[in-house]
Amino acid sequence: MKLLTDLDNLRVLLVAARNPLNIGAAARAMSNFGVHRLRVVNPYEVAFQEARSAVGATALLAKAEQFQNLAEAVADCTLVVGTSAAGRRELQHRLLRLEEGGKKIKRHLNTGPVALLFGSERFGLSNEEMSHCHWMMRIPTREEHGSMNLGQAVAVCLYELVRGRKLAAPAQKEKASAKSGEAKSEEIERLTKILFEVLSTSEFIQPRAVSAEEKLRRLVRRMKLNSNDAEVLVGMLRQIDWKLRANQNRDE
Amino acid sequence: MKLLTDLDNLRVLLVAARNPLNIGAAARAMSNFGVHRLRVVNPYEVAFQEARSAVGATALLAKAEQFQNLAEAVADCTLVVGTSAAGRRELQHRLLRLEEGGKKIKRHLNTGPVALLFGSERFGLSNEEMSHCHWMMRIPTREEHGSMNLGQAVAVCLYELVRGRKLAAPAQKEKASAKSGEAKSEEIERLTKILFEVLSTSEFIQPRAVSAEEKLRRLVRRMKLNSNDAEVLVGMLRQIDWKLRANQNRDE
Repeated sequence: MKLLTDLDNLRVLLVAARNPLNIGAAARAMSNFGVHRLRVVNPYEVAFQEARSAVGATALLAKAEQFQNLAEAVADCTLVVGTSAAGRRELQHRLLRLEEGGKKIKRHLNTGPVALLFGSERFGLSNEEMSHCHWMMRIPTREEHGSMNLGQAVAVCLYELVRGRKLAAPAQKEKASAKSGEAKSEEIERLTKILFEVLSTSEFIQPRAVSAEEKLRRLVRRMKLNSNDAEVLVGMLRQIDWKLRANQNRDE
Repeated sequence: MKLLTDLDNLRVLLVAARNPLNIGAAARAMSNFGVHRLRVVNPYEVAFQEARSAVGATALLAKAEQFQNLAEAVADCTLVVGTSAAGRRELQHRLLRLEEGGKKIKRHLNTGPVALLFGSERFGLSNEEMSHCHWMMRIPTREEHGSMNLGQAVAVCLYELVRGRKLAAPAQKEKASAKSGEAKSEEIERLTKILFEVLSTSEFIQPRAVSAEEKLRRLVRRMKLNSNDAEVLVGMLRQIDWKLRANQNRDE
């Protein structure tokens, strides 16, 4: 089969996975569908080791990258999408069905790296974890039994991303320049942090207010900034921050 | 949720399944997607009993019908479709990709019972078993690694059959309330103005710098904010502005 180069841009992230069988099953589905970048975030250490050493473990699993926190794991991605079971607690995020979200992801894969997140088997993604996502996606399962097995959920999502593909490689789109392309997660996170600082200094929010930081993170991600604008905004906020502190210090 | 009456016509057949975990996983995917007629043909007896008694086994599994041979298991069906891994031995049958075959199955479900067959984990469907099928269908996996895990294959096939359905839609559709709709120009302009004020006060830009204001206006519009977020941002900036001025006045 020809190289499906845009799939090189897809990273599958398993967050806090607990069961080695599920990690192995996710890796197998990835291999079936030609997706080969697996990232494992904060896994049960034992589960990850077991999955890696299992009979028939794919080369893909041996190459899987391990991260201790989600921010680092999505740092190089320009789109971060979380998956969620149906009928869960009301989300703060835009929630798309897989059919729709899959289309958006496919388009994005032509332009930059996409992270697709799957939460732990028992709890799914936490609110903090979701706050790193641009939007959420759900598989159209029944309301009465929405929660899928992790390995099956990965298989279904990847199928949606490859279905209908011709076997020939898609024409590489012209690359947008780095600067006018969408901002990477690390740039967005930098913006979130400095915005949080400024809002704390100016007493808009209480320092160390955790839920405020999550709200900010979501707000900033909804802006869909390009790399250049993100940088400009960070520069503005740094100046504001400096000014606020300078005044404060003179005051004391 | 409304009854998906045409799915009542679908029977999932596991032929000679050997692993209780796979039988359980197939049943779970069926329950997720609202397909409830499972038939198990000539299974490893022990595997079937284990799957049935497993913790969390679905009601669906308890109601599964058991057959000793395939002919009886498909007797009441007007369409019989087998599944096959990619790149297998040349088939005597017409082989459709899942995307295409799924459409035909969906049409048929409106008229009569359809059997969808999955072979054993190790060997797939035998030639004899395939001979009971009208045609074969394959999931578009890579040639180099075509063989899917049984539970995952069932999940992917059923997803293809329910995808795009109206009835499986979640209750919590995206709300198109006025607040989450795109911000009106007047809201965006209000944001632009206050941002300009703050940046002037904090000496990021020279007061009355016309081209700076235009740049800001374009920057803010590129954010494609919704109405609510625009309001939140205006609130933040007002507070920052107030704080900057308060400090300044005290200073003078």
